[in-house]
Amino acid sequence: MRIPKAVQQLTEAFERLPGIGPKTAQRLTFYLLHVPQQVLAEFASSITNLRQETKVCSLCHSVDETDPCSICTSPLRDHSKICIVEQPLDVIALEKSDSFKGLYHVLHGVINPLDNIGPGELHLYDLLPRLKSGKISEIILATNPTMEGEATALFISQLVTSKNQGKIKITRIGRGLPTGADLQYADDITLKKALEGRREY
Amino acid sequence: MRIPKAVQQLTEAFERLPGIGPKTAQRLTFYLLHVPQQVLAEFASSITNLRQETKVCSLCHSVDETDPCSICTSPLRDHSKICIVEQPLDVIALEKSDSFKGLYHVLHGVINPLDNIGPGELHLYDLLPRLKSGKISEIILATNPTMEGEATALFISQLVTSKNQGKIKITRIGRGLPTGADLQYADDITLKKALEGRREY
Repeated sequence: MRIPKAVQQLTEAFERLPGIGPKTAQRLTFYLLHVPQQVLAEFASSITNLRQETKVCSLCHSVDETDPCSICTSPLRDHSKICIVEQPLDVIALEKSDSFKGLYHVLHGVINPLDNIGPGELHLYDLLPRLKSGKISEIILATNPTMEGEATALFISQLVTSKNQGKIKITRIGRGLPTGADLQYADDITLKKALEGRREY
Repeated sequence: MRIPKAVQQLTEAFERLPGIGPKTAQRLTFYLLHVPQQVLAEFASSITNLRQETKVCSLCHSVDETDPCSICTSPLRDHSKICIVEQPLDVIALEKSDSFKGLYHVLHGVINPLDNIGPGELHLYDLLPRLKSGKISEIILATNPTMEGEATALFISQLVTSKNQGKIKITRIGRGLPTGADLQYADDITLKKALEGRREY
């Protein structure tokens, strides 16, 4: 028995998504076989519309319905702070936490020499023109606390310092124990960073 | 910042799939933002075509491009054996193993009183007309070795016996240790079944 071509095609499409292996792809496809045609049509059209109805902001490179995005154009935001993140999803996570009212800058990746990704492949140098206005007082490096994220943060910090002679305050997002963590299960580096990052109580 | 509507819609569509939570759905959606529009269009059309280009066989209820399916109509298959499985994916798994040359019968589920699924909700009673021809010599119960799968196997076995006065041989798929397993990590029931199912060497 040959697997029907339509099933095969959709399975392959699912397999191309990150974190979805052949078995999961097959399971998703066969699940959709039981779903009404109207739901399938809606699913299909939301995939087609995805890129047509979203724009990448030419200033901060975050994803929104307009360009420039609603954050970059908002008079309610603090235009003197820029938070630098790796991915558009990081912007959504930070916005959800409701803890930052400044602007963002999305790199769309990290410096990763093993994958041949240098600063030129990211939206990294685009940050410099944004700092020239003289209105920016602080940039917050909020790349992930991974090897690549740390290297990228260091690179940006050196780049900004060299171009702006220290006029802009550069901060790194806080490191330490996440909420709900258990000290005895925390790894060495997290504990080290948590101690280094201790604050007066 | 509001999440763009197109992003929101696709995230929700992904979330409805089994085993995909809100975080994974978001990750998949943002991954697709980086994919060329042509790939998105192909993905969308394979979803739309899925049900239009596949048929559920009216005899065995497996999924194929034709009805009756290529297995039910094949003269190369052994039409005296029927293997009863829960899902169309089980047919594909068995076909891939190349170990069964008979026919199939797909129940599209299992008896599960907690979910209000009785034998009437499955393609279970459809099996009886297939046995009436007198050509069937064996049915293999290949429902999963779970509580529900076992109950369904027992139910079918009793139903077929009562209707056919024992003229049809009823077998259950073999139980025991899977290939590559480690005896010391096997659970009690698996070990019990493996001992019960021992064969002369």
